[in-house]
Amino acid sequence: MEATNLFRQIEFIKEVDKLKYILRKTKLFNSDRNENDAEHSWHLALMAIVLAEQANFPIDLLKVIKMLLIHDIVEIDAGDTFIYDTQKSHTNTDEEREAAKRIFGILPNEQANELIAIWEEFEEHQTNEAKFARAMDRLEPLLQNASNQGGTWAEFGVGYEQVYAKKKVIEQGSLPIWQYAEQLLNESVEKGILKK
Amino acid sequence: MEATNLFRQIEFIKEVDKLKYILRKTKLFNSDRNENDAEHSWHLALMAIVLAEQANFPIDLLKVIKMLLIHDIVEIDAGDTFIYDTQKSHTNTDEEREAAKRIFGILPNEQANELIAIWEEFEEHQTNEAKFARAMDRLEPLLQNASNQGGTWAEFGVGYEQVYAKKKVIEQGSLPIWQYAEQLLNESVEKGILKK
Repeated sequence: MEATNLFRQIEFIKEVDKLKYILRKTKLFNSDRNENDAEHSWHLALMAIVLAEQANFPIDLLKVIKMLLIHDIVEIDAGDTFIYDTQKSHTNTDEEREAAKRIFGILPNEQANELIAIWEEFEEHQTNEAKFARAMDRLEPLLQNASNQGGTWAEFGVGYEQVYAKKKVIEQGSLPIWQYAEQLLNESVEKGILKK
Repeated sequence: MEATNLFRQIEFIKEVDKLKYILRKTKLFNSDRNENDAEHSWHLALMAIVLAEQANFPIDLLKVIKMLLIHDIVEIDAGDTFIYDTQKSHTNTDEEREAAKRIFGILPNEQANELIAIWEEFEEHQTNEAKFARAMDRLEPLLQNASNQGGTWAEFGVGYEQVYAKKKVIEQGSLPIWQYAEQLLNESVEKGILKK
């Protein structure tokens, strides 16, 4: 039984290596190299550890980290969707649900069910953990674009109002981080790297 | 106070982006692209989540994950050392200790102290959490090399005995994973991708 579980766990570990090939639109800090989903997931999990005390409420940090480490795994099958893409929904599409079933389904059933449930919880952003995890997911590209001459905002002509609307949800996870983010957006407008 | 903490936390988050540029000797699964430390750290943390039940003892999974997410951060200053390098010690050099002080020291003091202590605990591999975390760190490149025509074993002419000695410590974290690893080493010898 343990041996069978281990075999499935190893297969999953091999399969998720593919996340390292999924490129995001955003670039690394001060760089013109695109970030990949594995790097992004590592960064968000570490951010959650150091920023947990900024959350609006007590959080189960282990669950937040699990969410962040797995939140983009469905993109192995479904690909990355640009957050400012108005044609394609970013969240919890049929394609993503199929991907979750296939990829987490490689694991022993109990683990597969746990990780699918955690991924769905993240996507539904109703619980405290999901709200805080989403704040991390929105903060990282903001820091990247602000340090990167506007990054994807400049590259794809995304304006202040669109960015503000996407970033505002940070407030649901952490008021102080949202206040910092709002200030960074204003500074970006003043610097001319985000158009109002 | 919270605002000062947040400022230091954000500086740390920006600084550790540099981990994405530190290349390891090992390649991605079935690939000739080198893995970087951020991708590696993400993979190990996720491995710990799915393999925790294989540990020889109950573990504090959150602590293991923290260890794995931060274990290579000192390499931002100290660089990656190849595990089979006989000239240079891999573990806890003065250079790495200085790096830990500088990089974790960007954080608020209490957090800096916590993460330095966790990094040292990992490096000393005495506690259950450190033993299990190290098992993850030894398992991933084994899976990579075995799936990659011998990978660094072939590239750098590393033989079975050297690899066996480095991998044997997996046993201290997980007996079933070690049994799997031992079998994989034997299969690699049979395939001719690891020389005995």
